[in-house]
Amino acid sequence: MYSIFESDITIRPDDIDMNNHVHNTKYLDYVLAARYDQMVKDYKMPMNEFHSLDFNWVVSISHVEYKRALKLEDKIIVRTQLESVSGAQSKVNFWIVKKSSNKVAAEGYLIYTMISIKTGKPVRIPEEIINRYAI
Amino acid sequence: MYSIFESDITIRPDDIDMNNHVHNTKYLDYVLAARYDQMVKDYKMPMNEFHSLDFNWVVSISHVEYKRALKLEDKIIVRTQLESVSGAQSKVNFWIVKKSSNKVAAEGYLIYTMISIKTGKPVRIPEEIINRYAI
Amino acid sequence: MYSIFESDITIRPDDIDMNNHVHNTKYLDYVLAARYDQMVKDYKMPMNEFHSLDFNWVVSISHVEYKRALKLEDKIIVRTQLESVSGAQSKVNFWIVKKSSNKVAAEGYLIYTMISIKTGKPVRIPEEIINRYAI
Amino acid sequence: MYSIFESDITIRPDDIDMNNHVHNTKYLDYVLAARYDQMVKDYKMPMNEFHSLDFNWVVSISHVEYKRALKLEDKIIVRTQLESVSGAQSKVNFWIVKKSSNKVAAEGYLIYTMISIKTGKPVRIPEEIINRYAI
Repeated sequence: MYSIFESDITIRPDDIDMNNHVHNTKYLDYVLAARYDQMVKDYKMPMNEFHSLDFNWVVSISHVEYKRALKLEDKIIVRTQLESVSGAQSKVNFWIVKKSSNKVAAEGYLIYTMISIKTGKPVRIPEEIINRYAI
Repeated sequence: MYSIFESDITIRPDDIDMNNHVHNTKYLDYVLAARYDQMVKDYKMPMNEFHSLDFNWVVSISHVEYKRALKLEDKIIVRTQLESVSGAQSKVNFWIVKKSSNKVAAEGYLIYTMISIKTGKPVRIPEEIINRYAI
Repeated sequence: MYSIFESDITIRPDDIDMNNHVHNTKYLDYVLAARYDQMVKDYKMPMNEFHSLDFNWVVSISHVEYKRALKLEDKIIVRTQLESVSGAQSKVNFWIVKKSSNKVAAEGYLIYTMISIKTGKPVRIPEEIINRYAI
Repeated sequence: MYSIFESDITIRPDDIDMNNHVHNTKYLDYVLAARYDQMVKDYKMPMNEFHSLDFNWVVSISHVEYKRALKLEDKIIVRTQLESVSGAQSKVNFWIVKKSSNKVAAEGYLIYTMISIKTGKPVRIPEEIINRYAI
């Protein structure tokens, strides 16, 4: 079982769409921001360390279930948890939670593929990186 | 079986992210743009006709499988097809296709929920609307 | 002379463009976020209080001078200062500052026009609001 | 006197903000899209030709005067005109025009600086490029 990590994310006015709530695609940008934050503060391996090893992460599948609309005033936490690692891919679950009620505004998962920057092709995630993520 | 409709979508420079390809969340914005376009040209029922009936569509689930990166130079078509309608929800499948190769860059589905603008609550999709979409 | 207020703004990965730095239009979104923040914490008059009085602010002129590129890793502060109020318009100067060096990444101004939500027309900024902003 | 070139730009639903019109920063993204389009179709020198010569364009100043709100339904044309070239910089004027009324929704200018990708420093715009733009 992998740890659940969390990041405070601030909703910006430009995230609000014509329906007067956070635009549905911004939820995925909040998760991306949370993962970048957690790569630094929790995994101690920021994205540019991956880049310096010729690795990059790209999204292969995104899946979001929207439960409650988010308003500009809402304070939110994004929790993420690595679920599994296999070959070139990792699966990460996420929950976007309203701080005021502790209720889930959206949940889902992302499947990321590690690629070589040089070739653009998927590469097996090295044991050493799996170990650093095994927290 | 519902019809497949298609829209040309133009990739903009601001859609490109630090990986030098179309940012993953923009794919969903392309599908949204295609649906708005098809509501006008194919379903003959633009979004503001829904609004004038106190109806709005919100996204309940989004699911995207990314197959090929999109570059700024790519010309794309977004195809969508209603799969099913049930209660307050409809499921729409989509394919984002590169014109040059006719290959799928991404595919997935969206589950939309019809809500009342006044109450914010889900409402059963009226028979008349189902009929207009049954093409 | 009006006060200078400041807000911490967090750069998100989706703000980074194909040039691998913050996309030029995001600077204006950072200023917008800072103003919303400062309306709450400094002016004690959040945007929805304006809305409840049938007022809204729209941008009439934006002017940005870019001095230094912002990277994803940069920590920034947005400082803003009301310069003048006249008729339906107010002019706000801003500075986006890198925390690490205290150097200005961009500066400029915005001219906002107060409109009536009902009519969409400009309205003279009421004395009471001018007074609340005179800090 | 340099030529005025024009591009059709399509407004997308995700460009609409909480005020139910096109978000103010998107106007600049429309001008960017128009310039990329015109680099290909009018100047016959697409951005990647600049890149292959180690050149890139960055925005040094953006100035926008908003005249009329743009709605999702609006059809627009972006006209741009090179005003002057000097040293490492060029000034480009733009007009965003509603097709239905031929009225200007916004106008302004951008000052671009040519930089070397390798050094990140400004470079004098070569005579050959000035000539290709002198149309």
